[in-house]
Amino acid sequence: MTLSKNRIKYIHALEMKKTRKADRVFLAEGPKLVGDLLGHVPCLFLAATAGWLAQHPHPQAEEVTEVDETELARASLQKAPQQVLAIFRQPEEMYKMEEIRRSLSLALDDIQDPGNLGTIIRLADWFGIEHIFCSPGTVDVYNPKTVQATMGAIARVKLHYTPLPELIRSLGSEMPVYGTFLNGEDMYARPLTRNGLIVMGNEGNGIGREVEQLVNRRLYIPNYPTDRPTSESLNVAVATAVVCAEFRRQAAGG
Amino acid sequence: MTLSKNRIKYIHALEMKKTRKADRVFLAEGPKLVGDLLGHVPCLFLAATAGWLAQHPHPQAEEVTEVDETELARASLQKAPQQVLAIFRQPEEMYKMEEIRRSLSLALDDIQDPGNLGTIIRLADWFGIEHIFCSPGTVDVYNPKTVQATMGAIARVKLHYTPLPELIRSLGSEMPVYGTFLNGEDMYARPLTRNGLIVMGNEGNGIGREVEQLVNRRLYIPNYPTDRPTSESLNVAVATAVVCAEFRRQAAGG
Repeated sequence: MTLSKNRIKYIHALEMKKTRKADRVFLAEGPKLVGDLLGHVPCLFLAATAGWLAQHPHPQAEEVTEVDETELARASLQKAPQQVLAIFRQPEEMYKMEEIRRSLSLALDDIQDPGNLGTIIRLADWFGIEHIFCSPGTVDVYNPKTVQATMGAIARVKLHYTPLPELIRSLGSEMPVYGTFLNGEDMYARPLTRNGLIVMGNEGNGIGREVEQLVNRRLYIPNYPTDRPTSESLNVAVATAVVCAEFRRQAAGG
Repeated sequence: MTLSKNRIKYIHALEMKKTRKADRVFLAEGPKLVGDLLGHVPCLFLAATAGWLAQHPHPQAEEVTEVDETELARASLQKAPQQVLAIFRQPEEMYKMEEIRRSLSLALDDIQDPGNLGTIIRLADWFGIEHIFCSPGTVDVYNPKTVQATMGAIARVKLHYTPLPELIRSLGSEMPVYGTFLNGEDMYARPLTRNGLIVMGNEGNGIGREVEQLVNRRLYIPNYPTDRPTSESLNVAVATAVVCAEFRRQAAGG
């Protein structure tokens, strides 16, 4: 049982969105990530070392191949391949408008960096945020760099690619829609709601104009000292984390 | 005035720590980063397009070359080169123990990812943290990926590579030394001090054993819902941001 040249070629082709989209699949590598996904997402193919296979049940995988370290390295997209890689079916995620209206969710307006998206999915999982809405221009969640950066959270957080203005309008005018802006209101000045949609913008350009007009609560993450004016900014994953942490601190009564 | 082959070769060699260390220099690219550095750090060489040179004073640069886009692209380490690149002298940063005892500072125990380090420097700047202490095993701050990820904050935040146990012992037993742990105390349960050293650990292994024993306040960033047990974790830059934001919220009386 070895990996054919064609199989390795196919695995490498999964670095391209075109291939992933055509076959509705994605690649994941490493014991933590593959382990988290196996229970949640259909697995089409799995290649692992004898050691990994002996220690981890994997009845969910439709096809399994034992490989040695050398073969795994040849197939892997990672600098340091780790024991196992697998191809999964892209899940079709559902949501109910009524549930979104009651919950705290994220909306990402053209996030470009795969690592940032992965880090945001990971922190959403930590802060119990189940749904992330992505503008069609946001980087593909199944980009291998994004998948790896989620550290397994991609098995639990649900992503939906959809035009954000239409989504926000469908949620109705009572839905709190938050965004962060350099000229927003100090995030700690007034209580935050328990439900809401938190919009985070593109790394270079922030939130797009059409979406910005639909934001009904403009927040600012205070810098320090607070009387020191700044034109600087925070990395988008970092800003998302600080905002989500504060929503959850208030919701938990902290 | 064009870039010689040798010059381009040298610029590419600055991707390697060996070259940077031998010459005590580093490379920075793009108008924001180079602009921020020019006022703060000695500039040995600068290559820029005619457009950039015409619009930006640069009397600090010891040597200046005008280049066209094609030449810039040949020299650049970036996928999308932007108008200007420059070689700077590595600054020698100083600190006074007495100042550190009174301030809030960060200590990084073997952070490995250049992007994470850059993002941490950027958020330290946002939250007014002036000094970051790095264990000798932490990735080099002058790695081009780190430099670029700081978005200019490297011009303001001071980094010191030093063994952390010795540093912590020198600060004295009254110095609050914080670290985050899955079994730490809810970060919101008790007030945080205004001064302190916040230790953040390696991406895979967390804080090393020797440093952990010197941490005198173990914190936990609550996940949500708070009664949902988790073995997951946050990206180290994200965790650093959430902790720093809370220190500064309390200090500002938020």
